[in-house]
Amino acid sequence: MPLTGIWQLNVRRIQFSFKSLPAVVTLVFMLSSSVLFLCMLKHLIKISLTAKNLVGQVFFACVQCACILFIDLARHWPALIRYWTRVELIFNRPPYEMLKRNLTQRVRRPAIIIVGLSLIEHGLYVASAVLSYRRRAYYCIETHNSTSAVSFDNYIMQNYDYVFQILPYTKTIAIFILIANGACTFVWNYMDLFIMMISKGLAYRFEQISARIRKLEHEEQVKESTFIEIREHFVRMCELLEKVDNALSSIILLSCINNLYFVCCQLLNIFNKLRWPINYIYFWYSMLYLVGRTACVFLTAATINDQSKSALGVLRRVSSKNWCVELKRFSEEVHMDQVALTGMKFFRLTRSVVISVAGTIVTYELILLQFNKADKVNDCYEH
Amino acid sequence: MPLTGIWQLNVRRIQFSFKSLPAVVTLVFMLSSSVLFLCMLKHLIKISLTAKNLVGQVFFACVQCACILFIDLARHWPALIRYWTRVELIFNRPPYEMLKRNLTQRVRRPAIIIVGLSLIEHGLYVASAVLSYRRRAYYCIETHNSTSAVSFDNYIMQNYDYVFQILPYTKTIAIFILIANGACTFVWNYMDLFIMMISKGLAYRFEQISARIRKLEHEEQVKESTFIEIREHFVRMCELLEKVDNALSSIILLSCINNLYFVCCQLLNIFNKLRWPINYIYFWYSMLYLVGRTACVFLTAATINDQSKSALGVLRRVSSKNWCVELKRFSEEVHMDQVALTGMKFFRLTRSVVISVAGTIVTYELILLQFNKADKVNDCYEH
Amino acid sequence: MPLTGIWQLNVRRIQFSFKSLPAVVTLVFMLSSSVLFLCMLKHLIKISLTAKNLVGQVFFACVQCACILFIDLARHWPALIRYWTRVELIFNRPPYEMLKRNLTQRVRRPAIIIVGLSLIEHGLYVASAVLSYRRRAYYCIETHNSTSAVSFDNYIMQNYDYVFQILPYTKTIAIFILIANGACTFVWNYMDLFIMMISKGLAYRFEQISARIRKLEHEEQVKESTFIEIREHFVRMCELLEKVDNALSSIILLSCINNLYFVCCQLLNIFNKLRWPINYIYFWYSMLYLVGRTACVFLTAATINDQSKSALGVLRRVSSKNWCVELKRFSEEVHMDQVALTGMKFFRLTRSVVISVAGTIVTYELILLQFNKADKVNDCYEH
Amino acid sequence: MPLTGIWQLNVRRIQFSFKSLPAVVTLVFMLSSSVLFLCMLKHLIKISLTAKNLVGQVFFACVQCACILFIDLARHWPALIRYWTRVELIFNRPPYEMLKRNLTQRVRRPAIIIVGLSLIEHGLYVASAVLSYRRRAYYCIETHNSTSAVSFDNYIMQNYDYVFQILPYTKTIAIFILIANGACTFVWNYMDLFIMMISKGLAYRFEQISARIRKLEHEEQVKESTFIEIREHFVRMCELLEKVDNALSSIILLSCINNLYFVCCQLLNIFNKLRWPINYIYFWYSMLYLVGRTACVFLTAATINDQSKSALGVLRRVSSKNWCVELKRFSEEVHMDQVALTGMKFFRLTRSVVISVAGTIVTYELILLQFNKADKVNDCYEH
Repeated sequence: MPLTGIWQLNVRRIQFSFKSLPAVVTLVFMLSSSVLFLCMLKHLIKISLTAKNLVGQVFFACVQCACILFIDLARHWPALIRYWTRVELIFNRPPYEMLKRNLTQRVRRPAIIIVGLSLIEHGLYVASAVLSYRRRAYYCIETHNSTSAVSFDNYIMQNYDYVFQILPYTKTIAIFILIANGACTFVWNYMDLFIMMISKGLAYRFEQISARIRKLEHEEQVKESTFIEIREHFVRMCELLEKVDNALSSIILLSCINNLYFVCCQLLNIFNKLRWPINYIYFWYSMLYLVGRTACVFLTAATINDQSKSALGVLRRVSSKNWCVELKRFSEEVHMDQVALTGMKFFRLTRSVVISVAGTIVTYELILLQFNKADKVNDCYEH
Repeated sequence: MPLTGIWQLNVRRIQFSFKSLPAVVTLVFMLSSSVLFLCMLKHLIKISLTAKNLVGQVFFACVQCACILFIDLARHWPALIRYWTRVELIFNRPPYEMLKRNLTQRVRRPAIIIVGLSLIEHGLYVASAVLSYRRRAYYCIETHNSTSAVSFDNYIMQNYDYVFQILPYTKTIAIFILIANGACTFVWNYMDLFIMMISKGLAYRFEQISARIRKLEHEEQVKESTFIEIREHFVRMCELLEKVDNALSSIILLSCINNLYFVCCQLLNIFNKLRWPINYIYFWYSMLYLVGRTACVFLTAATINDQSKSALGVLRRVSSKNWCVELKRFSEEVHMDQVALTGMKFFRLTRSVVISVAGTIVTYELILLQFNKADKVNDCYEH
Repeated sequence: MPLTGIWQLNVRRIQFSFKSLPAVVTLVFMLSSSVLFLCMLKHLIKISLTAKNLVGQVFFACVQCACILFIDLARHWPALIRYWTRVELIFNRPPYEMLKRNLTQRVRRPAIIIVGLSLIEHGLYVASAVLSYRRRAYYCIETHNSTSAVSFDNYIMQNYDYVFQILPYTKTIAIFILIANGACTFVWNYMDLFIMMISKGLAYRFEQISARIRKLEHEEQVKESTFIEIREHFVRMCELLEKVDNALSSIILLSCINNLYFVCCQLLNIFNKLRWPINYIYFWYSMLYLVGRTACVFLTAATINDQSKSALGVLRRVSSKNWCVELKRFSEEVHMDQVALTGMKFFRLTRSVVISVAGTIVTYELILLQFNKADKVNDCYEH
Repeated sequence: MPLTGIWQLNVRRIQFSFKSLPAVVTLVFMLSSSVLFLCMLKHLIKISLTAKNLVGQVFFACVQCACILFIDLARHWPALIRYWTRVELIFNRPPYEMLKRNLTQRVRRPAIIIVGLSLIEHGLYVASAVLSYRRRAYYCIETHNSTSAVSFDNYIMQNYDYVFQILPYTKTIAIFILIANGACTFVWNYMDLFIMMISKGLAYRFEQISARIRKLEHEEQVKESTFIEIREHFVRMCELLEKVDNALSSIILLSCINNLYFVCCQLLNIFNKLRWPINYIYFWYSMLYLVGRTACVFLTAATINDQSKSALGVLRRVSSKNWCVELKRFSEEVHMDQVALTGMKFFRLTRSVVISVAGTIVTYELILLQFNKADKVNDCYEH
């Protein structure tokens, strides 16, 4: 993807052009996922739309949207990262000091964890699909004397049947599908990971500001000019945050809706009965992973807000001797400005949002579970 | 309608009297839509009220209410527009400068787009109704050997049967009904369009104030009197907004409820099966149009709030040298006052309202879809 | 009731003792309504509790609670009204001026309207009950040759059967029940009426303060002492409001829950089919009356908040010449303090509460309507 | 439990080590409740998970979590209580005075009441279980001529069957189970009790600050240094509150979720029919106890917020003569800071939270009641 420059965050400035290798890779990926998307859409229209078979479609639609948004972000990225680096220069030298774990560690750790967990998740998904297929196939052979061989070709044709209603079956296409599918899952995870990394980067700076103020607390006499400087840095960070938010907020909104939808879908299936143990393992792992990832994204994004507010407590303790107009202005700004990433400015990612999202999910879940039940009642009548 | 003066927004002052041509047109329209309304009401009472056949009734009731509210608005309009023009004089000369796209363009463009799209929507509605009627008629002739000719008279009588239970059928009345129906749809769309145009006009002025403050940022030394002036202009705009809001807020409330109701109704029918392709085209177009229009109204109205807050960031950057009591007062007012159009002061049209409205719609939808399902279960038993 | 002193609001101070005539009347009423309450409770336990037959029980429970709360209020009333009168002395002389309609008119008008409408409501209730009874009786006589005479005794025994399962039937008791029933309805209405009158009284004073500030706006030079005085009066009104709120908030909470419950119950029955036209008239009138009364209580209580905020706009316009520390303090207090009656401090009665209550009612309604439907499906199977 | 030091709140500093008697007791308790937890889990997986048989599992899971959180709290407790005692020294001497009822009384009274009520609740639970078992047993003997004796062994084996699918039955284990079960119930109650006691302790100090300010109101001339001192004490209390909140907030979140879940479960069973009168008595007592306890926890925790705000009214009344920068800073801090215990910083325990929790419970209840109904319909079909 044209965004690979992100891995060189603190090193050098990156350029963006449509004629680079990542851009070509992205384009190929976009095309192949579009083919999957359209095949599924056609298949769905044929067998008529229901709430259940919508899941796959929504998955591909999300990935498509994410791709387009990322490419759009990539266009603004060089300017943004240059601005960011300029702002960061302030914080890389005294009087600001490194915090316990430095930024690179903080950003890298969740990245590795998420990538690792998502690989396990995809591995389990493939394992679950393959094993189910094999058991079903053997079962069929035993009971119906069907002669369909347990082969790779057969497996692909059964699991991705909607593709082969349009394209002819060849081994190349089959492998291609598997790769495209894997890449889609990666993009789907990458979206959340990206938001988390950006959040960590921003929260770190606000933490540095708080740390500096905390250090000042123990000094007897603080010059007003020091507070003016800190306030100016705080305002610059707020401006940076706004710039980042303008570029990212559509991706954040997409990620939130996406996570909400999939969490609801997965939770719905809790009471369902599955056939093989591997299905249970995959289902529970994938659900816990999804819920965990969603919580992580929300909580990490909320740390920006938490860190920006953490200075407030120290400002409260400043003795009335050191109190000055500039401090008053600073403390009011810290209190009033809701410093946070937003989802298209519709909502701010703070800790209180998490609880309302959780409440919403429970409400939807309870309503949707009734559907499921009603469906079963219907099923009983039909058979 | 007595409100046509709106098209001469920046040109000259308008007078309003009950004895003008627009007033007569409005009256005729009111009367004819009342007839349709009452016919339908009588029809409904006869066949007993259900949630489904309520839609048409609600449509006519909304249009009637909108008419009354617009006539009431028209009475206050000349005074309001005169006040508005006086306030606008400030912003039409330096130090305020024209923004990139001037006001007339900004107001005219959405107007043309909405009118265009609504015409297509009404056209599709008619096409869908006519084609359905024809196919059904041919189908009847083939299967039941019914001799009912496929004629204009017959079409009108079938689609507007509730009218002809009271009035006798003549060609004049038939054409009259079609015109009245079209006019109703226009008023229904006009309500939203009007709110959007007013919002654009107000947001433009707040944008000008922000632009002026942004320009001051780069100057070394700013006199306090400049900030006093800007603050006074800001306060005048707030007062204008309040006056406009007092006149408009009932229309805004009606428009919001109306949009919410129809969006819910349309979304409910997503999983329904329709007979002819033209029905599908009409349904999806009309749903997307409705959702899009609703989103547009909310988002356009929210820009007033966004623009009024946009000055805040610049005020944060003012250096402590230029900081003065008046600036403090200004920045507090900008922060504290929730500058926005309101729905009868019950809620403010800001961006955060959009997400809660969306959440409400999803909740209602989920609950209502269960109804639909329950209905179908019932239907199965009955047949 | 021991609270009749309210009618002498502006005249003289009132004393409260448990040995007065109103206290005895209240006691008698309490006793008789307790009897009705207990009879119904015993009846309900016998026929087993369901959501439907709960309505009457809730009605009597509400009335009982209201009585107890009013008696408790009455104990604190003399002290409260004395304090109130002292505060009001400030506002009855210049520089405060009478507003267009004076307080007595404002308080008296809604009182008369509510009492009138509630009398009509109770009349319709009796008429509906009597007519239903008679028609049903005649119908029975015709079809089943039953010999039960259409008499007053018979009517009472059928409609209040739960009483006569415990008490013996005598004409005195029958008339007593009718009176007790009427008194209950009166208390039930009185609760809302009382809140409205108190709200009007408080809002009037805040309006006076706003009017005074508005008059100052046109003066060239205003002394700081004037603003100090106005701010002190505002603070005194806030304290009065808090005292009133402490005394009233439990009644307000009861009234809100009560109204919410009955509005939900009534709305549930919209799609029900009734037997006689008089039932329809009573049902629709009673529903509109209930919804209207509820809206009135909320909106009247919200005017206190609206009026207290209305001074803010004028304060914004004060020129920077007249701006002083005291004005800053005043404007901040007006902005920050949420001046409003509360329901036990759980929620504040402002305009924004109205929309969230309306949203809640719609949600509950949609969920409850499904119950109704499910019940009908069940009914079908059972028969 | 290692937390018994809480009973010596105001007396002396406590030490914490893993090798003390309470720690061993806690460990034994943890182990035994884990055994119960795992037995039940295995039982559940065998008979397949449904929403109904989840209740017991959730109960044990909550108790387990509470234990772990309490042990974690205990580790931080000595440092916290030492800090707390240091802060309290300020408030134990003039100018702060004792309030009407001193802290020990305030903390002890609810503790005794809650422990008493919970003992009654557990007693009723045992009585209900034993009596049900006996009647059922006698009934079986009469009708089926079953020879199962009514013995203690039999009772344990029937009620805790899930344990004896894994462990062999011996009298020792049976008694052990009863004790473990009782201890679990105690921990479950203790969690709420603990939050209440801590809240009382904190609210008392804020009340003292308010009382001191209130006393100053009547003095003619107050030195600024007095207000500086009070503000500093207020800030210290806020810091203490934050420290306590950091240690407690996970327990608070657990307690809230736990209470919400069990209240919903209990309310669901209101319309159920039970067999014996003792079941009714236990059910209604346990429900009222649960609802009452939940309300108590929320309201007690909310008093911290109420008390911290109560100073605001007095600050409003300070005459403009005594008004100073420090007072302004104080009043702004009191107004802006949301001083309250939080549930993991997701939500603040204020009075307004109570109403939204109540609204949420009602919504869930209405949705869940439909489930129940649907279940019954299903049941009808199946039999």
